[in-house]
Amino acid sequence: MTLVFHERIGLNGRRISPFSWRIRYTLAHKEIDATVIPTRFADVQRIRDLSGQHFTPIIEHNGAVVHDTWAIACYLEDRFPDRPSLFGGDAGRGAARFVNIWSDTVLAPSLRAQIYADFMRVLDPGDRAYFRETREAQLGMTIEAACADRDAALPAVAATCAPLQRTLSEQNFLGGAAPAYVDYIVFSVFQWARIGSPRDVLALLDGVGAIIAWRDRMIGLFGGLGNRFALYPTGDEV
Amino acid sequence: MTLVFHERIGLNGRRISPFSWRIRYTLAHKEIDATVIPTRFADVQRIRDLSGQHFTPIIEHNGAVVHDTWAIACYLEDRFPDRPSLFGGDAGRGAARFVNIWSDTVLAPSLRAQIYADFMRVLDPGDRAYFRETREAQLGMTIEAACADRDAALPAVAATCAPLQRTLSEQNFLGGAAPAYVDYIVFSVFQWARIGSPRDVLALLDGVGAIIAWRDRMIGLFGGLGNRFALYPTGDEV
Repeated sequence: MTLVFHERIGLNGRRISPFSWRIRYTLAHKEIDATVIPTRFADVQRIRDLSGQHFTPIIEHNGAVVHDTWAIACYLEDRFPDRPSLFGGDAGRGAARFVNIWSDTVLAPSLRAQIYADFMRVLDPGDRAYFRETREAQLGMTIEAACADRDAALPAVAATCAPLQRTLSEQNFLGGAAPAYVDYIVFSVFQWARIGSPRDVLALLDGVGAIIAWRDRMIGLFGGLGNRFALYPTGDEV
Repeated sequence: MTLVFHERIGLNGRRISPFSWRIRYTLAHKEIDATVIPTRFADVQRIRDLSGQHFTPIIEHNGAVVHDTWAIACYLEDRFPDRPSLFGGDAGRGAARFVNIWSDTVLAPSLRAQIYADFMRVLDPGDRAYFRETREAQLGMTIEAACADRDAALPAVAATCAPLQRTLSEQNFLGGAAPAYVDYIVFSVFQWARIGSPRDVLALLDGVGAIIAWRDRMIGLFGGLGNRFALYPTGDEV
């Protein structure tokens, strides 16, 4: 049975979720074919019925339904041990979990405050009200308020990125000489920022050249996977 | 030829360097016997003559002289491949490098501002003037000024530690089910803070129970290695 990948989509098929990007790269890394089911926020009832919760991505494989991006990565690593490893072993998996949590709780909020005011436009128009309502409830403020003074926050973003910059000054990938799941974790956050705003945050920061060069390498992997879908809309596409 | 380990010491043989702790745990992990050469700051000329730079730790092995803690760990991993692995493979090594840089540039400065005012007392009395002079030149202020308002900084320390707390809520070690070099990296910073001050910073933070439990596990490894040497002086030891 082919693996089924429920992947978040936005405006005109754009891939707008960092978590779905993580699994898209993971499937490519492990050379696993998947049937993709594009999933809008409006499809939440289908997701709930399938998995008992409302987040994407979700995979279905041999009767199993797996949600939570980290759990999916671990599932694929364990069920496809003959394919290229995501973690390179138990210690690598352990360290990757720290990188995952750091990425989602430190890096992503830092970038979110840079791009969220623009993000609504990459959503399907029918999903925008739902997105605004749920995100503003989480943020405790309007999306626009969460992005106030974003230029003033740039030095703090650079400081947050500094350990990435230093690491990537020494090695081509966070996984060392070759990309690993740690790369997909962190790249997915920059890819989400890249697609979700016309503002290229990295280009506005000082001292992040190694991150920019790595991001380019990541975009180019798997036949240019990072550019396979449309980026931020230009012109009057709505 | 036995491996030689030049290890930083302080007051009455205390082990006061996070970097030397990292290598002490590494040698235990890899089951490598070493001849330890206790090294005071006053021994800087011996270190310079040996390695061309002034930092410890240094190892000598089969005619090689290796300095820089990360370089030493990689050397030992590569030269003793039949011993328990520090990284669990290339991807684990890559991710460990990120953790190392995060630990040294984000975590350690956060803890330093909590303990440095007390730290002078764990140095050998003959090293204190040198230490103050060199550290204050790096800090651009007095050691006491660098520790001002340390109570007010505690919430920021907890925030810095949050990704560790979340990771260690899910797994016993940063390396997963068993300790790995990522654990020695991060533990060494907490061990340095623990030995360098009577102030137990972790005990003053909210929501770090998983880190405290992990620190206890780390102290207990290798027959209680973390308690093998004296802690912060009590009474009138000088």
